Amino acid sequence: MLIKNQDYLRRRNQSLVLKMVLEHGPISRAEIAKKTMMSPTSASRIVTSLLKEGLIREKKISTSQVGRKAIYFVPNEDYFISFGVEIDVNRISIGMINFVGEWLEAKSFYCDTASSESVINVISDTIHDMLKRQKFSESKIIRICVGLPGIIDIESGVVQASAQLNWRDIPLKKLLEARLPYEVQIENELNLKALAEYEAFQSTYGTVAIIGFGKGVGSSVIVNGDIFRGAHNYSGEIGHTTVDPYGVYCPCGNFGCLQTYIAEQFLISEASKTRTINSVNEIIRYYERDEKWAQNIIDKALIYMGVAINNVVCTYNPEVVVLSGSLIENYSTIRDLILETYKENIWKPLLDSFELKITNTRNKGVVMGAALNLQQHFIDNFDEKGD
Amino acid sequence: MLIKNQDYLRRRNQSLVLKMVLEHGPISRAEIAKKTMMSPTSASRIVTSLLKEGLIREKKISTSQVGRKAIYFVPNEDYFISFGVEIDVNRISIGMINFVGEWLEAKSFYCDTASSESVINVISDTIHDMLKRQKFSESKIIRICVGLPGIIDIESGVVQASAQLNWRDIPLKKLLEARLPYEVQIENELNLKALAEYEAFQSTYGTVAIIGFGKGVGSSVIVNGDIFRGAHNYSGEIGHTTVDPYGVYCPCGNFGCLQTYIAEQFLISEASKTRTINSVNEIIRYYERDEKWAQNIIDKALIYMGVAINNVVCTYNPEVVVLSGSLIENYSTIRDLILETYKENIWKPLLDSFELKITNTRNKGVVMGAALNLQQHFIDNFDEKGD
Repeated sequence: MLIKNQDYLRRRNQSLVLKMVLEHGPISRAEIAKKTMMSPTSASRIVTSLLKEGLIREKKISTSQVGRKAIYFVPNEDYFISFGVEIDVNRISIGMINFVGEWLEAKSFYCDTASSESVINVISDTIHDMLKRQKFSESKIIRICVGLPGIIDIESGVVQASAQLNWRDIPLKKLLEARLPYEVQIENELNLKALAEYEAFQSTYGTVAIIGFGKGVGSSVIVNGDIFRGAHNYSGEIGHTTVDPYGVYCPCGNFGCLQTYIAEQFLISEASKTRTINSVNEIIRYYERDEKWAQNIIDKALIYMGVAINNVVCTYNPEVVVLSGSLIENYSTIRDLILETYKENIWKPLLDSFELKITNTRNKGVVMGAALNLQQHFIDNFDEKGD
Repeated sequence: MLIKNQDYLRRRNQSLVLKMVLEHGPISRAEIAKKTMMSPTSASRIVTSLLKEGLIREKKISTSQVGRKAIYFVPNEDYFISFGVEIDVNRISIGMINFVGEWLEAKSFYCDTASSESVINVISDTIHDMLKRQKFSESKIIRICVGLPGIIDIESGVVQASAQLNWRDIPLKKLLEARLPYEVQIENELNLKALAEYEAFQSTYGTVAIIGFGKGVGSSVIVNGDIFRGAHNYSGEIGHTTVDPYGVYCPCGNFGCLQTYIAEQFLISEASKTRTINSVNEIIRYYERDEKWAQNIIDKALIYMGVAINNVVCTYNPEVVVLSGSLIENYSTIRDLILETYKENIWKPLLDSFELKITNTRNKGVVMGAALNLQQHFIDNFDEKGD
């Protein structure tokens, strides 16, 4: 029962007007005041400020009979340009998206991601190139959001640790901002993917969880459109929840962390005890040839994937659980098997409380989510300069 | 980036005015309009409606020099009376609390809670008695919130299952409302306790998790003052997260549910394999006499309590974890041991991300939380009848 301070209320009202135009434009001053329940004076003052800032523009629409034109407002689609960037192991994807969510350009290419320097070069060069080809005036607001697997301090934009990229304490925001004259946000990739999935569901669900099974194991939950972050953006780190305190040793120093039963390199290292194995693909090939050792490894991973789903369902009670990550997206065998078997592991009273889905944003998810995140952040924190 | 419908905005503004008076009263019409950024007309219309409804009342305060009296508004403390009720195994506690959070009366007594009929008799008789002793006019709004351990459908107020009370599909809301002419809410006790803890911290923390270790194992998370419920109020059911898929059988049908390593009856049943044991107290006495079997049972329970804390920290990333429940509140040996040992089980990167505390609302927590919950629900859903 907390009332935020007045400054917060003022900003919230500005955001509200902007959202009204983005979602309901063309819309008139009178409609904005009515829909937001603000005084006509306050609403009008905010509209004027948004016009002056160039976020919205006028659109004159003929009123039916008399032929006079009434003034409505629509968003200025070029005002805010988002660059969504995904850093995956040895691959970088970049999308350029405008204020109303249209894709202007997209690129994806190989990059040696072990070197954060190469990554920074590739991102800044590509964004420079993309911008050169567009004819934006200089007043446009351009923001960049980078998603990657790992633990990120979102305030400072430091990648504290990414086991997948083998990064530790990389001040990615600072390094990119030194190369590009735009504000950069760094985010956990699963949070962004979850935002994109949520948006794709068009508000069908209020609480959406995503689980990533791949080089690591993680999760993210969206509640009414917002990322559930916890206190310091560390929520969803299910890869290090303990699923057997007497279990196998995890490089983190604990025993029986969930990821040690599922993540790709652990499966490969288990398999290597029997054969020379370099990829999950090879394990699956042996699995399909009915080799007992390969079946044991995959079957065990499936059980722990079921445990991961159960534990996410019991803790967050989502309406839908979306499975993603390389193990799900690249291996149809695993994808089909988990859909067949997961129910065995779910606590019975919650078996019908959720739907299990496979990611449908696929390789575009992180980039789309990054653009959504930038726009949401921009609107929520928008502060008119007019006062 | 979702705009709730206009009806929602209207109600939200009404709640805002009411909260302003509750938190900042005495407060003038002008201050209310200014602080809420509403038009003076809208703000004044809502104030008039609240006055007419009797939620707030005028307070004339002399302005310094001229001697004229200005009109301010304060909450009407008797307008809204909450009954907070806790049903614990064989004990019922009831508190009567007014609109500004003052306790008017409190009672607690033994009751055979295995019989839902006895429970309903005791609650309705006590509330009738308490009300008889007060001189409330008939226009007062009286609400009841009952907290108990179990899975509750908060919409219908049906207790779907409570292992602790041995209840199944009890339509508690309906049964109580048949006996008392007031709206009744049924809630999970841990959610209410978490609300009370959150309030006790006076907004020191944004994300507060509570874990209950007792006849069952559960958790609840408060985010910025609101219960994190998930889609259907089932979030926090950590007792049935799997912490060893190859572990011991749980009555739910799964293997290795967290509660099977911690909950009282499981400890007693383990202990009974060695000696005739009827209570946790007896196990602890043997533990303190250094009997190996008792040490094994308690030490193992401590490891799984540590796992519970780790898994709550990794999934929700709270700023504080509050331990509660009979095992913590009634047995200082266990309380001291878990505080000594839990760090062993926490994922190292999150070791300093939270504070571990022991519940300080104790046996008043559920009743206090129930009153808070009723008031919060009332304010958030308050809808003026004036239109």
